[in-house]
Amino acid sequence: MKNEFSAHEIATMLGGTIEGNPDTIVSGLSKIEEGAVGTLSFMAHPKYEPFIYETNASIVLVNSNFVAAKPVSATLIRVNDAHHAFVQLLQTYNNKQNHSSGIEQPCHIATDAQIGKDVSVGAFAYIADGAVIGNHCKIFPGVYIGPHVKIGDDCVIYPGVKIYQHCVLGNRVIIHSNTVIGADGFGFTRNSDKSYSKIAQIGNVIIEDDVEIGACTTIDSATLGSTIIRRGAKLDNLIQIAHNVEIGEHSALASQVGISGSTKVGAYCVLAGQAGLVGHIKIADEVIIAAQSGVTKSFSKSGATILGSPAYDVSEAKKLYIAYRRLPDLIKKITILEAELEELKKQKRDSDT
Amino acid sequence: MKNEFSAHEIATMLGGTIEGNPDTIVSGLSKIEEGAVGTLSFMAHPKYEPFIYETNASIVLVNSNFVAAKPVSATLIRVNDAHHAFVQLLQTYNNKQNHSSGIEQPCHIATDAQIGKDVSVGAFAYIADGAVIGNHCKIFPGVYIGPHVKIGDDCVIYPGVKIYQHCVLGNRVIIHSNTVIGADGFGFTRNSDKSYSKIAQIGNVIIEDDVEIGACTTIDSATLGSTIIRRGAKLDNLIQIAHNVEIGEHSALASQVGISGSTKVGAYCVLAGQAGLVGHIKIADEVIIAAQSGVTKSFSKSGATILGSPAYDVSEAKKLYIAYRRLPDLIKKITILEAELEELKKQKRDSDT
Amino acid sequence: MKNEFSAHEIATMLGGTIEGNPDTIVSGLSKIEEGAVGTLSFMAHPKYEPFIYETNASIVLVNSNFVAAKPVSATLIRVNDAHHAFVQLLQTYNNKQNHSSGIEQPCHIATDAQIGKDVSVGAFAYIADGAVIGNHCKIFPGVYIGPHVKIGDDCVIYPGVKIYQHCVLGNRVIIHSNTVIGADGFGFTRNSDKSYSKIAQIGNVIIEDDVEIGACTTIDSATLGSTIIRRGAKLDNLIQIAHNVEIGEHSALASQVGISGSTKVGAYCVLAGQAGLVGHIKIADEVIIAAQSGVTKSFSKSGATILGSPAYDVSEAKKLYIAYRRLPDLIKKITILEAELEELKKQKRDSDT
Repeated sequence: MKNEFSAHEIATMLGGTIEGNPDTIVSGLSKIEEGAVGTLSFMAHPKYEPFIYETNASIVLVNSNFVAAKPVSATLIRVNDAHHAFVQLLQTYNNKQNHSSGIEQPCHIATDAQIGKDVSVGAFAYIADGAVIGNHCKIFPGVYIGPHVKIGDDCVIYPGVKIYQHCVLGNRVIIHSNTVIGADGFGFTRNSDKSYSKIAQIGNVIIEDDVEIGACTTIDSATLGSTIIRRGAKLDNLIQIAHNVEIGEHSALASQVGISGSTKVGAYCVLAGQAGLVGHIKIADEVIIAAQSGVTKSFSKSGATILGSPAYDVSEAKKLYIAYRRLPDLIKKITILEAELEELKKQKRDSDT
Repeated sequence: MKNEFSAHEIATMLGGTIEGNPDTIVSGLSKIEEGAVGTLSFMAHPKYEPFIYETNASIVLVNSNFVAAKPVSATLIRVNDAHHAFVQLLQTYNNKQNHSSGIEQPCHIATDAQIGKDVSVGAFAYIADGAVIGNHCKIFPGVYIGPHVKIGDDCVIYPGVKIYQHCVLGNRVIIHSNTVIGADGFGFTRNSDKSYSKIAQIGNVIIEDDVEIGACTTIDSATLGSTIIRRGAKLDNLIQIAHNVEIGEHSALASQVGISGSTKVGAYCVLAGQAGLVGHIKIADEVIIAAQSGVTKSFSKSGATILGSPAYDVSEAKKLYIAYRRLPDLIKKITILEAELEELKKQKRDSDT
Repeated sequence: MKNEFSAHEIATMLGGTIEGNPDTIVSGLSKIEEGAVGTLSFMAHPKYEPFIYETNASIVLVNSNFVAAKPVSATLIRVNDAHHAFVQLLQTYNNKQNHSSGIEQPCHIATDAQIGKDVSVGAFAYIADGAVIGNHCKIFPGVYIGPHVKIGDDCVIYPGVKIYQHCVLGNRVIIHSNTVIGADGFGFTRNSDKSYSKIAQIGNVIIEDDVEIGACTTIDSATLGSTIIRRGAKLDNLIQIAHNVEIGEHSALASQVGISGSTKVGAYCVLAGQAGLVGHIKIADEVIIAAQSGVTKSFSKSGATILGSPAYDVSEAKKLYIAYRRLPDLIKKITILEAELEELKKQKRDSDT
């Protein structure tokens, strides 16, 4: 695989124009403030302009309207949108690193599992009875795909991911290392002696198209029916999704969020880090939940921002919080009031006598 | 394995009576509100009654005293307790899916490891020197059982679980995927240059009978002695149990709870999601700790409910919280008091002159 | 390997003097309050003195100046510092249990991977193209070392750890089971239809010398450049370190801490359990962050203690918290003030008429 590119090749790929030596060679990407010789960087925002005069990056992508205030040693490639062009290159570079590598041995593929075209399976991966893997999937080493799991096309399942029986993944799903999909929901009935008996969890998890899930996240199977992650949703690391939860389309959940059983989160929501939601509530579409919030009830107003533990609408929460910040001041005010009132009462008594 | 059952067979199994076609066939279970053709559902609570007239489920279990207000198209099976009967079927169904599959190759079983009768070991599982596995255990693919680990009978260890050396599991213990039992406790001494030196952690973890542990949970070894999870306790996903902690019998810990070193939690406690406990404290029996609580001291009153961060007894915490909610109102009151007092003082001055 | 030691051998190893039978044999270590026959314990702090008269431990290490107030049945070994001597023994004992075991088959070592001297690789471990493993490393079963990963000397990588491509580890790094190093950062751009597009994450993670990382922790790769854990830092279990974060030298992070993208934590900091830090902030050196704190802004004062959610300097946070605790009392005061003012106004009206 080709690992080096000239300024000329990159400019051609991006439809840009070169300022400097078209034969400049790069083999990696870098941030402009850390740019090393042999790497390509970009400068899109004026606040990074000082770095362009000092960077050691060999090539820098800039917006076509950039005017240098001082001499620049790097070769420049001018494009319409330097940030966008750079993201495009990142993607290309990344794809090259993640090329498929076929079926590595030893791996375990059950005789009745169905494997699509152009699928790679890493060593020590396990694909159980009745599992179906779509085309162009990349199953990394040490992955476990349980019985009757169905996976669509173009999925990437990173090392150590475990997917329990009967779960269903759409197309272009990405799951990072050691995440667990479909473990038993946390369901028990309490016996008369206060011990617990397990309620069998026979539902599954459905993950729709274009979902990405981070590392060490857990999404439990439904007791019955399905826990559902709707298309386009993005989940970070170490997130807990309990049984029968539903996450709406294109919602984004930051790390360490926890969602209790049967709660439904709407579409286009953003849940910040360490937020927790109790079970059996419903969050409307486009709701933003602040970090560390503790959400104890449903919020039905689309587009709301909620925060606090317990969480309120931002207007209410801020009013409370501002009052809280004024507390030491209020205590002083009350002490003054008490003294003044005492003085008035004293004056009153004095004048009465 | 048989995958289809007739109404007649199910009624016989449950001791129920059929209303409708005894030859109706089902091959799965469903919720009544989502019931599909070919599945069996149940209706125990009157609030679900409307669904029984619309469901596509082919068979519905109902309580023997249920009186239909409208025509029902499904075949009914009347039993004493429809919910209980359904849980029984769930269990049976689940057991059928988790049948043992023998020793798959390649797996690693050390020559001096002892493996009981009727044990299944999945491919890529690793059982180290001196490990002892009881009868009827199911060790899934990719599990690691360290040196001298002892596991009782009828345990289920799901894919990717790692158990460090010398840990001990009782009977009927269930551990879900990618959970780690017995990693080193977080113990360091600070040197004079403020760097840390590791304190060797040579204790273990003891997990007693009938404990179930979720996915991606971490239970650290004791520095010396044992971290102990007492019989019947149930732990959810992504929980942290630090070194030398003890969790009492039949306590239930929800997801993302964190318990610091040497803390003892009593029996029959319930810890809700994301609660955190500092180290070296003791929680009495039957205590309920609310979600996101931060417990900073021991609670010795059995049966207490505690909440907040820092956490107080519910009566104290609620009093504080109600006062907090009144804060904006209090600020208004103080402003009025100040104005009125000023007016009184003015009147006093006016009358004095 | 030798598993039993006599009092004579241990005293020789530690430079101590024996009081009792030099032939007393021990095969394990214990806490003095739990000491069993055949184990060695220690007593350094006077508050544990009562246990020395009751313990069943066969040998007890004591400080050289210890004077027994009652008869002691255990064999004593007197040393300068009993606690320190015990830690030394712990370390020795632990090292004996973690001896190297060579290259177990089947494992996957890419033909162009470089493996140092005296390295052990467990079964089902995967070492990818271009990876470099230093001398005396212990790679446990089921570990995944991605393409071009570089690992220094004397590292211990426990079962199930996954390290993505291009990450770099220094010397004497310890990583516990199922931790994930180098998964993609959580980086997306929002499209005009409010769906997300992935920003390729092509940076890596750099972990410097003497870092220890707990189980099920996730450290994401930088978008570009490196996420960095500086030398001597200690991370507990279930921690989230987002892309482009930097953790300073010899800082200690307790379990379930979460740090958002691009935040820099200084050297010698201590972050207690479940604390969360937003992205793009900077924490000075030697800062202590209390458990469950929510840090929303930079703190530039070295040595500060901060707490609360949102977090303030301890002086400010305590003032607020003490005021909060007085709230029910304040409400009573205000009610009294209102009544008294009403009374004064009434008296005024009465006297005016």
